[in-house]
Amino acid sequence: MRIGVLTAGGDCPGLNAVIRSVVHRAVAGHNDEVIGFEDGFKGLLDGRHRKLDLDAVSGILARGGTILGSSRLERARLREACESSKELARDLGIDVLIPIGGEGTLTASKMLSDAGLPVVGVPKTIDNDISATDRTFGFDTAVGVATEAIDRLKTTAESHQRVMVVEVMGRHAGWIALESGMAGGAHGICLPERPFDVADLVAMVEERFSRGKKFAVICVAEGAHPAEGSMEYAKGAIDQFGHERFAGIGTKLAVELEKRLGKEARPVILGHVQRGGTPTAYDRVLATRFGWHAVEAAHRGDFGKMTALKGTDIHMVPLADAVTELKRVPENRMDEAESVF
Amino acid sequence: MRIGVLTAGGDCPGLNAVIRSVVHRAVAGHNDEVIGFEDGFKGLLDGRHRKLDLDAVSGILARGGTILGSSRLERARLREACESSKELARDLGIDVLIPIGGEGTLTASKMLSDAGLPVVGVPKTIDNDISATDRTFGFDTAVGVATEAIDRLKTTAESHQRVMVVEVMGRHAGWIALESGMAGGAHGICLPERPFDVADLVAMVEERFSRGKKFAVICVAEGAHPAEGSMEYAKGAIDQFGHERFAGIGTKLAVELEKRLGKEARPVILGHVQRGGTPTAYDRVLATRFGWHAVEAAHRGDFGKMTALKGTDIHMVPLADAVTELKRVPENRMDEAESVF
Amino acid sequence: MRIGVLTAGGDCPGLNAVIRSVVHRAVAGHNDEVIGFEDGFKGLLDGRHRKLDLDAVSGILARGGTILGSSRLERARLREACESSKELARDLGIDVLIPIGGEGTLTASKMLSDAGLPVVGVPKTIDNDISATDRTFGFDTAVGVATEAIDRLKTTAESHQRVMVVEVMGRHAGWIALESGMAGGAHGICLPERPFDVADLVAMVEERFSRGKKFAVICVAEGAHPAEGSMEYAKGAIDQFGHERFAGIGTKLAVELEKRLGKEARPVILGHVQRGGTPTAYDRVLATRFGWHAVEAAHRGDFGKMTALKGTDIHMVPLADAVTELKRVPENRMDEAESVF
Amino acid sequence: MRIGVLTAGGDCPGLNAVIRSVVHRAVAGHNDEVIGFEDGFKGLLDGRHRKLDLDAVSGILARGGTILGSSRLERARLREACESSKELARDLGIDVLIPIGGEGTLTASKMLSDAGLPVVGVPKTIDNDISATDRTFGFDTAVGVATEAIDRLKTTAESHQRVMVVEVMGRHAGWIALESGMAGGAHGICLPERPFDVADLVAMVEERFSRGKKFAVICVAEGAHPAEGSMEYAKGAIDQFGHERFAGIGTKLAVELEKRLGKEARPVILGHVQRGGTPTAYDRVLATRFGWHAVEAAHRGDFGKMTALKGTDIHMVPLADAVTELKRVPENRMDEAESVF
Repeated sequence: MRIGVLTAGGDCPGLNAVIRSVVHRAVAGHNDEVIGFEDGFKGLLDGRHRKLDLDAVSGILARGGTILGSSRLERARLREACESSKELARDLGIDVLIPIGGEGTLTASKMLSDAGLPVVGVPKTIDNDISATDRTFGFDTAVGVATEAIDRLKTTAESHQRVMVVEVMGRHAGWIALESGMAGGAHGICLPERPFDVADLVAMVEERFSRGKKFAVICVAEGAHPAEGSMEYAKGAIDQFGHERFAGIGTKLAVELEKRLGKEARPVILGHVQRGGTPTAYDRVLATRFGWHAVEAAHRGDFGKMTALKGTDIHMVPLADAVTELKRVPENRMDEAESVF
Repeated sequence: MRIGVLTAGGDCPGLNAVIRSVVHRAVAGHNDEVIGFEDGFKGLLDGRHRKLDLDAVSGILARGGTILGSSRLERARLREACESSKELARDLGIDVLIPIGGEGTLTASKMLSDAGLPVVGVPKTIDNDISATDRTFGFDTAVGVATEAIDRLKTTAESHQRVMVVEVMGRHAGWIALESGMAGGAHGICLPERPFDVADLVAMVEERFSRGKKFAVICVAEGAHPAEGSMEYAKGAIDQFGHERFAGIGTKLAVELEKRLGKEARPVILGHVQRGGTPTAYDRVLATRFGWHAVEAAHRGDFGKMTALKGTDIHMVPLADAVTELKRVPENRMDEAESVF
Repeated sequence: MRIGVLTAGGDCPGLNAVIRSVVHRAVAGHNDEVIGFEDGFKGLLDGRHRKLDLDAVSGILARGGTILGSSRLERARLREACESSKELARDLGIDVLIPIGGEGTLTASKMLSDAGLPVVGVPKTIDNDISATDRTFGFDTAVGVATEAIDRLKTTAESHQRVMVVEVMGRHAGWIALESGMAGGAHGICLPERPFDVADLVAMVEERFSRGKKFAVICVAEGAHPAEGSMEYAKGAIDQFGHERFAGIGTKLAVELEKRLGKEARPVILGHVQRGGTPTAYDRVLATRFGWHAVEAAHRGDFGKMTALKGTDIHMVPLADAVTELKRVPENRMDEAESVF
Repeated sequence: MRIGVLTAGGDCPGLNAVIRSVVHRAVAGHNDEVIGFEDGFKGLLDGRHRKLDLDAVSGILARGGTILGSSRLERARLREACESSKELARDLGIDVLIPIGGEGTLTASKMLSDAGLPVVGVPKTIDNDISATDRTFGFDTAVGVATEAIDRLKTTAESHQRVMVVEVMGRHAGWIALESGMAGGAHGICLPERPFDVADLVAMVEERFSRGKKFAVICVAEGAHPAEGSMEYAKGAIDQFGHERFAGIGTKLAVELEKRLGKEARPVILGHVQRGGTPTAYDRVLATRFGWHAVEAAHRGDFGKMTALKGTDIHMVPLADAVTELKRVPENRMDEAESVF
């Protein structure tokens, strides 16, 4: 069998572990040939690819990023690809394509699959927001990085009687904020799923200080937003920022809290540090299992599906299930965390 | 409500996170009173306990060990406790006991529960071998420590053309060896669940060296054992060891491989390092959720059960389910890992 | 002997290790009494202090922050303190004061010392910019945190063909940028000691991409600044920022590079994460040695001096030497790093 | 200029950083050509070498081990090499050889240098025991690994009222035990430099337990040894061990302490984990500086010397100075640590 593999979308610790696992299982286990496309679908359409043998994936298990490169999808080119998908597969001589990517990639994969290209997907989202799987690789690493940062900030906040606002990833779903906030023991957690009232945060901090606690840490997802009218000061101040992306909710919230509380408040924006570097053991295992099962599915002819973790097992679920709706943090998980605002 | 909490058995990263979570939920959420018993059931029987308020659990979320201390169970005293369990609860004035512990502790908890003491258990096993829950806290930390060790050993093994044998925890179940072996990319994994033939390991190493690879790493659970007759040299050598516990399977296997291969082989016994220290974010979240749900179950009067992770949710399962049989690594998980011998 | 100890200024990993070491040496070694003042000089002047015995410093060696709290110095109160320094010492019944702090604290310490209060100082600066000592504790931890961030950013930058600009601490001296830039293999390092020309950075990045390299990482100290006229675009954009501190050199430089290069450039501002958390082994050892030698100096009556690392030994140097001029990165160290702009 | 480089002896985190730095400085800075010899002096004598350009050293800065491989020196072949050293250099067309290695390697380098081969050495010892330099790379990483292990062991020891004996590297000099013991807050430190009396350790542990402390951690260098006659029980037990290297001082001491104290004592032998993996930022900087200065010395014709850290600067010192005597832990450093037995 000849298998094509590509990585698309934002990068995520564990991508290389999937690639390695696909190659190990396919080449050593099934005597297959594996072709890696460069820079995601671009490489597929432009014919930029290289053979991946055991040596090509040696030493990459613990390495962040992706040895194949990645790129965002261009819709126009995708449509064109769908139309000629069968020719594409024939020209490339591949029997099955294994795209590793997020919601956009999986949607594209479904279109290619519907158009006749045999596809087995592997879900990838650092935000953990794909519905059809309990967890995705990369998420555990991001939570680990964010938690370590909160651990560090607590000691410095305490020494200086400060409020620290840590902004973590999570544009549409607040899983990273929820879990790193819980793991780091943040006193407030703000998620995209529930608009927060700044007054509640102010009250929480004041209550802490009144009990003799000398600091507070608030963990806020980049996609969280204040309830309408709840932010007074920062709004105006922020309108003057030239580059909106450099004044995200973490910065705004710190400005607002400092004004209202009359105490030092400082934002820390973790940013891309969460995406990079060595994946945790958890993510390496999950990524490796996804790769293994993708190859097995390909050999069973189980196309149009993707790998998914359900409890402790890996199942194959229809690509359609993955892209219907985002997996958001449900109310009961917020209840457990208690500090969600 | 007056809640008693204790930790028993071998320690495990995340114990303090459970204690903290129980206190936070009970005291701040329900206005309960929490009593911590010292050194496990011993403290319960001897009446050594102290009040746990919010200040008592401040700063312990990320700390390894247990602030309550722990001890192994004495069967005789347990029986006596069961007989007088109702008096015990009345004397101590507790409405519910939350024991956090492994199989032995849960068995004892079931006996106390059957005898009439209201009990809500929290499972604890660093080996991840309790049947009724997908995962237990502490396991992820242990896997992380073992994986980092394998990462480190690979570079040194490669530079010196050596075989490294890493012995990790897992007396009856090989989960730590399986997952750290997969995450670290070990070339051989030996589990208690399947006797291994040393000849197979020898063949694997020789095949690697014949392909130009200059090292091999083998991850072996402390409870793994060779197929009968498969170990020639080490057996005799080992009979001379005065203290069997200092010459575990890792040491024996290294001796055997060195003799057979004619190459340097070195054992590394990770030991207690796997048990201690700061829990990973994953373990802190799981432990915190367990604590929260234990208190909620107590308030619902859902006694005789323990918290359990099923997929992404926490359920309450009968204590009886937890202690029927050990959760061992199944064949399909060994297949995925490929390098299991 | 009765020894007073306090921590002042910005916090720094290792402060607790110094406090612990002072108490261990004084109490266990010399049978002294140790008094800890709260929140720096404030606690000294307000009479807020507590006894520090062996139990009080148990478990703090690896903890970030300072158990004594810290605060910035108020000049007016300092002058007042100097005038009444002898009464102060007599009222408090202390034979010697050990202030642990940065340039401001050491200047104050010198004034108090000149006014007659027996003082032995311990230098503290996370920026490593105190002249009279080879290194200060906290610096190694900060460099470690920054280096790990650069390691992580490299893999994500490479996968997305991006330029990452990492802003690290260092207002007046660029030691953290120099060493984390070298350790992380940053392609450009910008220091306060040498104004950088943006055109040179642009040329470096373009040269890299022309050689097929797909990313670049630039490490910039918060106090670095562009040569006059060398920043075209960001300057205007930045004038609109309401809060200058939230648009530091890292953000400006990323904006500028993105405009000039036509490639994605992203800032990562590490901020307070560098100050907090568990100190590295190096910092714990240095801090412990400083504490030990400070107590020995006190017992020798070697006042008006501070501890200093010279090569491998700890010496006592006059407080005056510490505060004359900042230790800046010299030209030869920039030469070694090669990538300094 | 044509530069040869090789790595010899036991591996050490930072070797790759030196190689990378030599190549960067030589190729990018001086337009030199660099040849890497494989497996140490063996590759030099057998003519196994490869060209090292910028791409060859890409991505190795943070990687443990050595991309060139290493091997122990064979005395006979060395003598032969010395006799024909000039022919050797001429045949290989190298103008200077940069060997990176420990005492043995530096001795060999001196012989080759005396015989007429232009040599610039770079010292390497994870034990930090080379006299002519304040520190060597790799040492900081080893101390960091050992310290993290002690941190982890403390929490587990405390929960179980145990004595933990951690055996770290250091055959002839106890630097790793000294610094990791201080950084980890070990209650006892045993060094090769001073025979320890087991009775003193027993007294220390008993005194701790009498003060209500529930555990003790002892850090022992692999080369430490008990004062004559001070070990009663373990001696006999150990005589039965077939493989002396698997029953080092750590194991013996744990056996002995358990017998004498009547308390659980457990050995943890860190072993090769200390040698491998990503070097700390400190080690990467030092290694990079050594590489840079070695190339500069080569261009100045400053042969027969090696790089050395003195205070904050790198100096060139005669190879002879490096190999006269081992740098052992002096008395005053033991005094500072206080817990040295």
